[in-house]
Amino acid sequence: MVNFTYDIGTKVYFGKGQISALPASVKAYGSKVLLAYGGGSIKKNGIYDTITRLFRDNGISWTELSGIEPNPRHTTVNRGAEICRQNNVDVIVAVGGGSTIDCAKAVAFGTFYEGDAWDIIIGKAKPTRFLPVIAVLTLAATGSEMDRNGVISNLETNDKVGFAFAQSRPVAAIMDPEYTYSVSRYQTAAGSADIMSHVLETYFTPIIDGYLQDRFCESLLKTVIHYAPIALKQPDNYEARANLMWASSWAINDMIGYGKRCPWTVHPMEHELSAFFDITHGIGLAILTPAWMDYVLNEKTANKFAQYAVNVFGIQPQGDEMKTARAGIEETRRFFFQTLEIPSRLRDVGISEASLSIMANKLNLPSGYVPLDSADILKIYQACY
Amino acid sequence: MVNFTYDIGTKVYFGKGQISALPASVKAYGSKVLLAYGGGSIKKNGIYDTITRLFRDNGISWTELSGIEPNPRHTTVNRGAEICRQNNVDVIVAVGGGSTIDCAKAVAFGTFYEGDAWDIIIGKAKPTRFLPVIAVLTLAATGSEMDRNGVISNLETNDKVGFAFAQSRPVAAIMDPEYTYSVSRYQTAAGSADIMSHVLETYFTPIIDGYLQDRFCESLLKTVIHYAPIALKQPDNYEARANLMWASSWAINDMIGYGKRCPWTVHPMEHELSAFFDITHGIGLAILTPAWMDYVLNEKTANKFAQYAVNVFGIQPQGDEMKTARAGIEETRRFFFQTLEIPSRLRDVGISEASLSIMANKLNLPSGYVPLDSADILKIYQACY
Repeated sequence: MVNFTYDIGTKVYFGKGQISALPASVKAYGSKVLLAYGGGSIKKNGIYDTITRLFRDNGISWTELSGIEPNPRHTTVNRGAEICRQNNVDVIVAVGGGSTIDCAKAVAFGTFYEGDAWDIIIGKAKPTRFLPVIAVLTLAATGSEMDRNGVISNLETNDKVGFAFAQSRPVAAIMDPEYTYSVSRYQTAAGSADIMSHVLETYFTPIIDGYLQDRFCESLLKTVIHYAPIALKQPDNYEARANLMWASSWAINDMIGYGKRCPWTVHPMEHELSAFFDITHGIGLAILTPAWMDYVLNEKTANKFAQYAVNVFGIQPQGDEMKTARAGIEETRRFFFQTLEIPSRLRDVGISEASLSIMANKLNLPSGYVPLDSADILKIYQACY
Repeated sequence: MVNFTYDIGTKVYFGKGQISALPASVKAYGSKVLLAYGGGSIKKNGIYDTITRLFRDNGISWTELSGIEPNPRHTTVNRGAEICRQNNVDVIVAVGGGSTIDCAKAVAFGTFYEGDAWDIIIGKAKPTRFLPVIAVLTLAATGSEMDRNGVISNLETNDKVGFAFAQSRPVAAIMDPEYTYSVSRYQTAAGSADIMSHVLETYFTPIIDGYLQDRFCESLLKTVIHYAPIALKQPDNYEARANLMWASSWAINDMIGYGKRCPWTVHPMEHELSAFFDITHGIGLAILTPAWMDYVLNEKTANKFAQYAVNVFGIQPQGDEMKTARAGIEETRRFFFQTLEIPSRLRDVGISEASLSIMANKLNLPSGYVPLDSADILKIYQACY
């Protein structure tokens, strides 16, 4: 186990009606809010009304950043930063899923930077200060409500780039599972695949002495596998929505990765797809994951894949480790494409065949679980095209 | 899942050499330290020298509270509080296992209370302020390094009473698994039983929709079952010590209990034993646990015990749930008394038979997993006498 520093300071108000904790959470930081949200679904489902009433009743003033895109753009970040500067905003309240929260995190440091916030995202400039971000979660998927990360797209350059700063972790999160009852089948499936992918990126690493962390990984995977199908059938099943929501946070809040050290593989490969074709992140991940598993399965990795098959899917060990490993990958494929009904091929989600080599050439992942060069990545893209 | 607020703010520096993070952690709160420790083993293994050198090199002054007992006494708490008052202490550094850290937590509020700190422990008075506590952990067991709890003994009244305040959670913890290499076989076994007992108290509750939490519980149990025997055979096995140490914190830092709500049973029963006979807490827990399991196994609880048998010990379901459940309890017994070589009977650790009814009469646990009155408790005591 490699050394680490545990520091997960987000205060989470989890459960029915926890939105009532929002005013006090805001007032710990000030009374001028940037209310950030996406396409307006929060106006349909009543969350917008609830929040603005709470603000009014508690002397909290706000300005709004609306229309945050599913793959949030750097131009939107700059627009939000400008609003914060002009209104002397004290705290950002991001209401939505990962896109909205990611965008809010970028606005949080963009506010204190005179130039284009993209400079900070690509590492050309360093952030100096951060506004506090409070997340009100409406989608169980990215885990942005409790992590340090964000991903922003630049459509001018076809880039989708992640950032991670300790100060980007939301100071508080309101997580009411009932807020996810209205999430569509498609988004529920995509979110579930996203949670699983976060765990798999952490589970498959060369470091093998993180036994406890691996068991936690399997716990999270089993939770999604158990409850995602229930949420698809019964969108208002509280138990299912609550377990998925809590799993989404723990899949990526750093906990399962402490003591390990390994760059991710499938996420960067998917970010190329989303950057070029603006597809739903979780869908791209689901399509790529089994193909990636097939490709990196070898004599060295078979043991871990077999462990995955047995501990997550309850597959009986089949004597031959490689055979057990393959059965686990097959179950992964079945879960994504049959149980969750996610499209199984890149061609099904509008990716052009000609683009595969362009995207693969932009990437090179020399230090992942199994190192991959551009030629390897192209083969994986092609295998699931 | 019942509503909860997640708030685990302890900053943990985990791994080899992390003691180097101590000076900066102290200086975040001041420069006058109360250095609290137990019987002096930290002077033999060099930790005392390392810490005091770091203090001297970084302009940190300190006074000492030494000789904290294995079941820390309220008189020691009062002594520590007096030292803190006289020396205007800014922060307490507790070096040791749960007893030392528990005592430090009580000193932390006792310092700001004019009377006997016991008043606060038994709820007769309310704490007003708390000194920050930094834990330097040398024993994987109680989880006090990352939780809100403490237990203090009053030998005058034969009482052992727990407290839990949000402000009692250590602000930081240094967790170097190498510091536990010198822990004896007996204490390693007792600590492992303690960790498992914390998890079992949380696992066996009437609330059944905390699926993720239950999988986390099983992860922790499997980790202890896997590594405690290795640590017994190879005391300096880093992987084993690291996994046990990290498991000890997560067994009781609140995480696995969020979304549930159920008072504990075996711990209060053991506190009676320790209060009357000053025995090692983890040993008492190990002796009581299988007897408690036998006693509360019934048609309603068999399902959960069967799940425990299958998911934790890998027992094949035996058709009859009750049979599977019994096999799990038998494995628990075997693990504690054969694998860990813990004495299996109360008579073996110096408990007098005449005391059983006195202790049972002091207790009444009307709202645990299975409610127990004094007569039930006596039967459990007798079953493992």
